[in-house]
Amino acid sequence: MFSCWLSQLCRGLSTPTRRTTQLIWSSASRSLVLSSQRRIPELSSFVARTNTCGELRSSHLGQEVTLCGWIQFRRQNIFLVLRDFHGLVQVVIPQDEPAASVKKILCEAPMESVVQVSGTVISRPPGQKNPKTEALRLQYRYLDLRSVQMQYNLRLRSQMVMKMREYLCNLHGFVDVETPTLFKRTPGGAKEFVIPSREPGKFYSLPQSPQQFKQLLMVGGLDRYFQVARCYRDEGSRPDRQPEFTQIDIEMSFVDQTGVQSLIEGLLQYSWPSDKGPVVVPFPSMPFAEALASYGTDKPDTRFGMKIVDISDMFRNTEVGFLQDALSKPQGTVKAICIRKGAKYLKRKDIESIRKFAADHFNEEVLPIFLKTNENWNSPVAKFIMEEQGSGLVKLLETQEEDVVLLTAGEHKRACSLMGKLRLECADLLEARGVVLRDPALFSFLWVVDFPLFLPKEENPQELESAHHPFTAPHPSDIHLLYTEPHKVRSQHYDLVLNGNEIGGGSIRIHNSELQHYVLATVLKEDVKLLSHLLQALDYGAPPHGGIALGLDRLMCLVTGAPSIRDVIAFPKSFRGHDLMSNAPDSIPPEELKPYHIQVSWPTDAETEKSSSNHPCRSES
Amino acid sequence: MFSCWLSQLCRGLSTPTRRTTQLIWSSASRSLVLSSQRRIPELSSFVARTNTCGELRSSHLGQEVTLCGWIQFRRQNIFLVLRDFHGLVQVVIPQDEPAASVKKILCEAPMESVVQVSGTVISRPPGQKNPKTEALRLQYRYLDLRSVQMQYNLRLRSQMVMKMREYLCNLHGFVDVETPTLFKRTPGGAKEFVIPSREPGKFYSLPQSPQQFKQLLMVGGLDRYFQVARCYRDEGSRPDRQPEFTQIDIEMSFVDQTGVQSLIEGLLQYSWPSDKGPVVVPFPSMPFAEALASYGTDKPDTRFGMKIVDISDMFRNTEVGFLQDALSKPQGTVKAICIRKGAKYLKRKDIESIRKFAADHFNEEVLPIFLKTNENWNSPVAKFIMEEQGSGLVKLLETQEEDVVLLTAGEHKRACSLMGKLRLECADLLEARGVVLRDPALFSFLWVVDFPLFLPKEENPQELESAHHPFTAPHPSDIHLLYTEPHKVRSQHYDLVLNGNEIGGGSIRIHNSELQHYVLATVLKEDVKLLSHLLQALDYGAPPHGGIALGLDRLMCLVTGAPSIRDVIAFPKSFRGHDLMSNAPDSIPPEELKPYHIQVSWPTDAETEKSSSNHPCRSES
Repeated sequence: MFSCWLSQLCRGLSTPTRRTTQLIWSSASRSLVLSSQRRIPELSSFVARTNTCGELRSSHLGQEVTLCGWIQFRRQNIFLVLRDFHGLVQVVIPQDEPAASVKKILCEAPMESVVQVSGTVISRPPGQKNPKTEALRLQYRYLDLRSVQMQYNLRLRSQMVMKMREYLCNLHGFVDVETPTLFKRTPGGAKEFVIPSREPGKFYSLPQSPQQFKQLLMVGGLDRYFQVARCYRDEGSRPDRQPEFTQIDIEMSFVDQTGVQSLIEGLLQYSWPSDKGPVVVPFPSMPFAEALASYGTDKPDTRFGMKIVDISDMFRNTEVGFLQDALSKPQGTVKAICIRKGAKYLKRKDIESIRKFAADHFNEEVLPIFLKTNENWNSPVAKFIMEEQGSGLVKLLETQEEDVVLLTAGEHKRACSLMGKLRLECADLLEARGVVLRDPALFSFLWVVDFPLFLPKEENPQELESAHHPFTAPHPSDIHLLYTEPHKVRSQHYDLVLNGNEIGGGSIRIHNSELQHYVLATVLKEDVKLLSHLLQALDYGAPPHGGIALGLDRLMCLVTGAPSIRDVIAFPKSFRGHDLMSNAPDSIPPEELKPYHIQVSWPTDAETEKSSSNHPCRSES
Repeated sequence: MFSCWLSQLCRGLSTPTRRTTQLIWSSASRSLVLSSQRRIPELSSFVARTNTCGELRSSHLGQEVTLCGWIQFRRQNIFLVLRDFHGLVQVVIPQDEPAASVKKILCEAPMESVVQVSGTVISRPPGQKNPKTEALRLQYRYLDLRSVQMQYNLRLRSQMVMKMREYLCNLHGFVDVETPTLFKRTPGGAKEFVIPSREPGKFYSLPQSPQQFKQLLMVGGLDRYFQVARCYRDEGSRPDRQPEFTQIDIEMSFVDQTGVQSLIEGLLQYSWPSDKGPVVVPFPSMPFAEALASYGTDKPDTRFGMKIVDISDMFRNTEVGFLQDALSKPQGTVKAICIRKGAKYLKRKDIESIRKFAADHFNEEVLPIFLKTNENWNSPVAKFIMEEQGSGLVKLLETQEEDVVLLTAGEHKRACSLMGKLRLECADLLEARGVVLRDPALFSFLWVVDFPLFLPKEENPQELESAHHPFTAPHPSDIHLLYTEPHKVRSQHYDLVLNGNEIGGGSIRIHNSELQHYVLATVLKEDVKLLSHLLQALDYGAPPHGGIALGLDRLMCLVTGAPSIRDVIAFPKSFRGHDLMSNAPDSIPPEELKPYHIQVSWPTDAETEKSSSNHPCRSES
C-alpha cells in the first residue's frame, strides 16, 4: 500500500500526514500543446495522486482529490501553495481541533517540503489572488530545474523530439539505429576525446558525428536511417558550446538534395510547437555566393534587410583615397549598406561603437564611412563624393531621409565579411534604441546551397581541403572540373539557417568508390589506408545516398528563446567543461589508471603557472 | 533533377541506365506490424522510386513503376532479381535491339550493383518460382546488414522502441531527458572507462547508468523521466557483453513498487510485436527467497517446472553417508528435482554429462545421485534408501514411471544453486533428445521481489555491501531492523525476468537525506563526501521516487530469438571490445596525447608475453 509522507528540509518532523485538507484551485501551467492532435497523457496513472496541481478546474468543484507536490508558499498558517511540475494549487490548512497535529506539521514544514494532501475542491474566495513568492535562488541545478522556464524548456524539447520521431518513424519509415560511440580516432581528429583501452597504447575515441556509420548503414541497405545521436567535441573552453551535444542525424538512400530538403521542411513543420506559429514551406534557398555578397556570411539572418550592395562601378573615378586604393587592386571592391532611419536612432556613441567594431576588424583595405542623407551628405569625406555618385547611391540603396549609409572597400570576401558583421552590429544598436528589426516571434528559415567543395588550406593556399568533409559529393554540373580545376567545383552540401544561426547541415555523399578514392588521394592528398573500410564498403554496391544533421540544442534554444543552450539541457557543463554539481572531471588514483596503461604527465611549475593564469580556477560559474 | 545511376563493384561500367525494363513482382518482406494500428509509412516519399521492391502486388499490374535496389541474382541474361530492404522483384531484361546497351549494362554489372529501373508491372509467368541464391559470405558488417534477419532485427528494434516512446511520452506524460555521459568517476568504479581532460590529472568517466541524474531530476520536479540511455561498462573480454549498451531508463515521483511494475507491464504489453503473441498482465511475482529455494537462482526460467524440493526432513535418519554428513551440520539440507521421463530420454552419456557438470561445480557438501523409478529405485545408493523415504519421494515429487530424481545435500543456498544449474543442464539434455520443455514461442515474464537490501562482503563477511546500489529504499516493514539487524532488511528492489534472463531491475529509492546518510556512513561505511551533491539534493525537498531500467539489447535478443546480442546491434564490438571493421581501438601518436597530459606506460616484455598468451591477437572473429 501507498503511505503518505512529508519530507523536510530540517530535522524535527517525522510524522507523515494523512489528513483531509481543503483545496483551492489555481493553475500556473504553461501550454505545451503541439501542432497535431494527441491523446492527453494520463499524468496520474500508477501513482497515489488523483490529479496534478495544474489540472484542477471548476469542473472538479466538490470532488475529493489527492495531490502531491512541494510547499511553495505559506500565508499566516491559513493557506499553503502546493506546486508540482504542472501548476499550483492553494490548500486551506484545517483549523479545527481534531486536525491540530496536521496543522502543526503543515505550518512547521520548511518551504520546499514535499507533501501529499487529500481534500475537497472548493472555489476560490472572491478577491483572493495567487500569492507571489520570492524566486528561489537557483544555486543548484536540481533547484533550477524546478523553475517554470526550465520545466517548459525540457518538456518542450521532449515533445518536439517525440513529434520528430513520429514523423520519421511512423510517417516515413525511417529506422532508428543506434551507432557506436566508442570508435576509432579520425586521423588528426584534434577535437575528439580519447579513451584508453586495456590494451597498451590503444585508444578509442568519442566521434564528433556518426558520419561513417550512417553511410555504412546505407551500404548495408537500411534505406532510411535516423538517430537522436549523442556527439562529442573537445574544444577546450568555449562560451556557448558543450563537450557533448545532440544531433538529429538522418541519412537516406536513393535521394537527391531536394528530397532531403523536403524531408526536413516536413519534419520541422510537423514537429513545430503550435504556439510558435506555423512553419511555412518550402524554405527559401540561397546560393553561398549570394549569401556572402548580400549578407557577408554563410548564415544570413533574413528577418531583416539592410543587405550589402556592391557599388564598385559607381566609384571607379572616386577621389576618396582609400576607395581609390582599393579599386586599383585586381580584387578591389566597394560595398555599402543602408541603415534606415539611422540618423534618427543612432547616437554619437553608437557611431563611435560602430567605428570601434570596424577598427577591431580593421585591415588596410577596409574602413567604414558614414553618410547622413537628410539633405546633404553629412560625412568627413562628403566633399569627395561627386553628385552623380551621391544620386547613384540614393537610387541603388533606395535611401530616404535620415538613413545612414556605411561604405567599405577591399577584396570582395573580406569587405563582405566586415559589412556582414557591421550589419548585425547596427541591428543590435537600433534595437537597443527601441527599433524592432528582428521580430522575436518570427522564425526565418533559409537553405544555403552551392558551397564550394574545396577551400584553399589556410596555412598553405596551394593545397585544398574539404569545405565540409571528404564524403561530400560534387555538384553534378561541376564534376568535369574535378579533374581540371577542383577549386571551382561546387558541392551538393546544404546548410539550414534559422534567424542567422546554422541549425543543420548535410550533403549528398559520394557513393562511387573510385570517385571517393580520387578525392581522398589525389585532391586532398590524404592517406587512404585510414579510410579503407569505407572505400571497400562503397566498392560492394553502395546506393546513392545523402543526409543531414540538425543541432538539437541550438534549435531548442531558438525555439524557446533561451539565452543559452545551457537553458535547454538538463545538466549542462560550464564553459570550461566542468560539471559543477558533481565536480567532474576529477582526479583518479594512479592505481586506477594502471589497467589502462597510462600515467599522468604532470606539467612543470612554469607550465602550471601559465595555464592557471589563462584559466583562473575559481572564476567560472 | 534526379538522375539514374548504376553503381558497380568492378571498373569498366560507367554509363548510367535510364531505360524502361519489365518487372515481375514477388515479395520476401517479413511482417513488421506491431500491436496497435498505425498509419502505413510513406516509404517512397522524397526519392526517385515510386515503390519499394517488397510492396508490389497484383493490384499494381499494368502500372508504370520505378524501383531502386541491388542486383541479387541474374539468370541467363533474361531475368534479374532486384532487392531492397523491403523485398525482392524479378526484372525482365529487355531483349530488343534498341535496348541493347541497357541489356549489356544489366548483364555485365556485377552482383550487388545498385540500379534504378523503370517499367510496367506484369504478372509472373506460370511455373516460375523465386530463384534461390547463394547467401553472400558475411565477411563485412555492412554486407551482413543486408541479410533478411539483420534487417528484421534492426527494424523491429526501432519500431518497438518507438512504441515504448509513444506509451511513455504520449500516453503517460513522461519527459525524455538526455543526461550527460561525461561524468565524475564513481569511487572504486573499476568498470568505468576514463576520459582524460585537458586539465592535468583530471578525468571524466563514462557512467554505467544515469542513476544519480535521474534521481536529481526527481528532486528537480521533472515528475516522470525516461531516456533510451547509452551506458558504458568496461569489463575487458566477455563473450556476450558489449562495452556500450542501451537501457530504457525510467524514474517516477510519488510512486510505489506496484506503480512501477504496472507501468512496465503496460509498456511491454503496448510495445510487444503482435506476431509474438499477446503479453498477459499482470506478471506473476516471486520473492527472492522462493526463487532461490525453488529454482536455485534469482532469475528463474518459469517456462517449465522441474522445481527444487527440500527433502531434508525425510532424510533425517538416512544411511547414505554424504546426506548424513550434510544433515549433521547446522545449515545442512537435502534437495531434489524430478526429471519427468528422464529414464526414457536420458542416455548413459547424458548422465555422465550431468555428473561431469556437477563435478565441475562440486564441493565436499554437494553431490548428485540418480534414482530411476520404473519399478525399483535404480541407483548405486538405492539399497541405502529406505522404503518410507522412497515412497515419501514419490509422494512429494509426484514421480511417475520413467522419471529420474536428482538429490544433493549441503548448505541451503549452495545446494539450491547447484540444483538450479543442474535443472537447466537437464533441460538442455532433454531438448537435445527432442523433448520440448521451453517453448521458443512462449514469453514467460516474472517479477522477483523482496531481495535483501545488504549482503555480506565476500572478502569480509562481517561487513555489509549493497545488494544492488546504496540508493535502494528498505522494505517498509523492515525499516526498524535497519538500526538493529541490517542484514535482515529486505529492499524495495525488483527484477524483471524473462525466460530465465534478467531484462530489467529497479527500486524505490531512499528520498530522505538522513536515511541515505545513515545507510552510506553507518551501514556501508562509505565516504559520504563523494556523494555530497546527492545528499544535499535530498535535503532540499525530494519527492518519494522510484524507477527501473530495462536492458534493451538483451530484451531485443529474446524477442527476436537471436543467438547473441550482436545480432540486434548494428555495429557491435567483438568479444574483446574491438570494432573489427574500422580497427578500433587503435594507436595514437604521442603528440596527440599531450593535450591530455597522459602518456602510455608500456608494459615490460615479460608482461606483454603474458598478456598476449592470454589474448591471442588473431583468434577472435
